[in-house]
Amino acid sequence: MIAMEEERYEIRLGGSGGQGIILAAVILAEAAGLHGDNFVCQTQSYGPEARGGKSKAEVVISNREIDYPKVIRMDLFLAMNQASLDAYFYDFKPNGLLVVDATFVRQLPTSRAIAIPFTRIAREQFGKEMVANVVALGALAQLCPRVTPAQLQEAVLARVPPPTRTLNSEAFAAGLAAARAVNLEKLPRSIVPDQDEEEI
Amino acid sequence: MIAMEEERYEIRLGGSGGQGIILAAVILAEAAGLHGDNFVCQTQSYGPEARGGKSKAEVVISNREIDYPKVIRMDLFLAMNQASLDAYFYDFKPNGLLVVDATFVRQLPTSRAIAIPFTRIAREQFGKEMVANVVALGALAQLCPRVTPAQLQEAVLARVPPPTRTLNSEAFAAGLAAARAVNLEKLPRSIVPDQDEEEI
Repeated sequence: MIAMEEERYEIRLGGSGGQGIILAAVILAEAAGLHGDNFVCQTQSYGPEARGGKSKAEVVISNREIDYPKVIRMDLFLAMNQASLDAYFYDFKPNGLLVVDATFVRQLPTSRAIAIPFTRIAREQFGKEMVANVVALGALAQLCPRVTPAQLQEAVLARVPPPTRTLNSEAFAAGLAAARAVNLEKLPRSIVPDQDEEEI
Repeated sequence: MIAMEEERYEIRLGGSGGQGIILAAVILAEAAGLHGDNFVCQTQSYGPEARGGKSKAEVVISNREIDYPKVIRMDLFLAMNQASLDAYFYDFKPNGLLVVDATFVRQLPTSRAIAIPFTRIAREQFGKEMVANVVALGALAQLCPRVTPAQLQEAVLARVPPPTRTLNSEAFAAGLAAARAVNLEKLPRSIVPDQDEEEI
């Protein structure tokens, strides 16, 4: 059971319609599955809940073929706004990591959280709010142990329109730098004992 | 069991890396789930098989919340090239519908197939091969009973870059017209008796 859990790494991304969550999830999946040596499933679901200014996308990365392609217990949650954070925080692991866009998120449901103003960086450094998702991907390159910055950058450049490659490279680098400035050692460990993990 | 099967409508899209399969699947899912009144799951999987010039994406549409988000038995398969058709034809329903890009597909594994040269239409009518996926979406608007042409066109226009909206509208209309010219009544029915459906 513990071996299974180490193999499977589960990521959720949430945001409002225009924040580029699905493209970010596709890029993350391609970084891990095409540019990296993993099995990856990437999903989005739509239903009544998806029509309220929030959307979510998920990426499951594994060493083995993936039987169930959606998030079971979340290792990493990128929340680009408060509505999606509130709606999609369920299934967060005790030792999971929450990454939020500090531009829009005010209330954090866990202390295992990192707040970086992705949209403000996009707006102030690049004059383009629409690259906020790529700034966030730069941060995930530092924070997600299953992809390297090189793999993720390659996947970004393969997906964005060619004339925007320089802009997107710089946005990615800005997010990477912001995440590197965070001291992860200062985050609290989970207060839940390790045995709890075996309940699954 | 029969009621279950009617509720769930399962679509697979296959093509090579540059053919825009994932964007087409995202648009199809948004048409059914955001612009239409359905539950929808959209997935793509990556693994060793995905690194051979072929990729697949899936869309599951249902009246109810979706428990298993991947294709179990395929109602509709859009194959944009021969490699993805050969690799991903499994799970095709006896009464399923295969839609292929006749520009690249030569061998059909079923007679329940419609061949339209999406890429040739994109190249010759619009001078842009990259809109072949939107031409194909226009055809699916006619061939998929779970989305209307208006819903699908709205979803296309919401996803493509604003300066390309006119081009994409025209590409969508060309695909819709090509599919409307096909006489579906001439397709053979499945030779498998209906009872077989209950085996699931």
